[in-house]
Amino acid sequence: MKLGIFDSGVGGLTVLKEVKRAFPNVDIIYLGDTARVPYGGKSKDTIIRYSLECAQFLMRFDIDLLIVACNTASSYALDILKDEFGIPIFGVIDPGVKKALGVSKTKIIGVIGTKSTIASGEYQRKLAQAGSVVYARACPLFVPLVEEGITDGEIADKVVEFYLSELKQIGIDTLILGCTHYPLLLKPIKRYMEHIHIVDSASSLVEEISPYVKNEGSSSLRLFFTDHSPSLGSLVDLILGKGNKLELAPMLCSL
Amino acid sequence: MKLGIFDSGVGGLTVLKEVKRAFPNVDIIYLGDTARVPYGGKSKDTIIRYSLECAQFLMRFDIDLLIVACNTASSYALDILKDEFGIPIFGVIDPGVKKALGVSKTKIIGVIGTKSTIASGEYQRKLAQAGSVVYARACPLFVPLVEEGITDGEIADKVVEFYLSELKQIGIDTLILGCTHYPLLLKPIKRYMEHIHIVDSASSLVEEISPYVKNEGSSSLRLFFTDHSPSLGSLVDLILGKGNKLELAPMLCSL
Repeated sequence: MKLGIFDSGVGGLTVLKEVKRAFPNVDIIYLGDTARVPYGGKSKDTIIRYSLECAQFLMRFDIDLLIVACNTASSYALDILKDEFGIPIFGVIDPGVKKALGVSKTKIIGVIGTKSTIASGEYQRKLAQAGSVVYARACPLFVPLVEEGITDGEIADKVVEFYLSELKQIGIDTLILGCTHYPLLLKPIKRYMEHIHIVDSASSLVEEISPYVKNEGSSSLRLFFTDHSPSLGSLVDLILGKGNKLELAPMLCSL
Repeated sequence: MKLGIFDSGVGGLTVLKEVKRAFPNVDIIYLGDTARVPYGGKSKDTIIRYSLECAQFLMRFDIDLLIVACNTASSYALDILKDEFGIPIFGVIDPGVKKALGVSKTKIIGVIGTKSTIASGEYQRKLAQAGSVVYARACPLFVPLVEEGITDGEIADKVVEFYLSELKQIGIDTLILGCTHYPLLLKPIKRYMEHIHIVDSASSLVEEISPYVKNEGSSSLRLFFTDHSPSLGSLVDLILGKGNKLELAPMLCSL
């Protein structure tokens, strides 16, 4: 069985890692769109177009199931991808929502993500439909912090406080990390938001796709990126461990 | 006379502003590649390809002179653009180098920029050839800070200290802001690097292109961007003042 996973960059590797741990005997093709990363500040139209292109690339490998391991792409493009392609397709929003609703007692839930994810209102709409009170906040500096390797310490603490102080005062009991980069900032977030349930969608995604996955057969892994920057290898190693072969997915653009 | 200016995003508008102030009677076409911003962490090959595409787009307007208002693109693509197109082409590196050499007394010069700009070694090579001792540092968080509107205050101070403390200890007497976003962080940078000459290439670029510019005739301005995100308008207004008409430069990509 072949799973396809795409993300705007390396963040989706945190999802890939959980999927691989749960289903070690499947083939996985990963695509990170590092030539156009980040998606989180871009427009709805552009995010939909990029998502379609990424999915099309993975379809060429005859994948049986597609995971959109990027909250921004999941927010704007999931339904369009489902209409376009005839295989099971999963995003990271629904699993996060489901898990948050499961652990929250007060049903006062916070969600953080990129500008585009928060602007899409997907998390807010789905949580509100289930009867929750929702507070949302975009945290545009979290992704660059993680990509700079600043995942703890004084600067991380200050930036976490800058974005989360209102959510803390409001008294949410659960916080959804609505971006695949954010679990890497778990330490300073947990320290600041003490006694609050932190929900990361990667692990609940695994439960969601479980009925569709046959965990038997080969276990290959191919990692494609649309751009190979000098720091890409070390970022991939940071998340997946050493010894990964990175392949280039050439992209053509015209203006 | 028609000038073309491109940048990876909105940063180059700081250059456009200086050019417009110096030469109010020229036509200017600006292109910001916001669909693929930022360039600063991407590979040399990708930066060259994007720069060629941006220049080609502007050439269609029959421009007489091209300004590469992006340090990252200037670092890797300037010579290739000069080979490819038969009009005067100027980047932001040479003007910054010339100005720094003019104001520095000790010839111990620091330069800061994106990862790719610093990795290219262009500033370092040119300053060293002129007999300077050069210290360079990439500051990947400065661009996201500016784009988040955090241009002063406690977080800005902490991040400035994080990146510049070594340069301060070393005892440089001049610091080149090797990225068009960085002048927007001038306050915290000046406060931390007191008594040090701060060099921003936009104003010296104006001197460099002066012999090539006929400041007479019409004075139109067209602003193209490859992506129109919801926050684009307010960022443009922040730099240029209110009342700007933004046009979309549609981009097609295939993977």
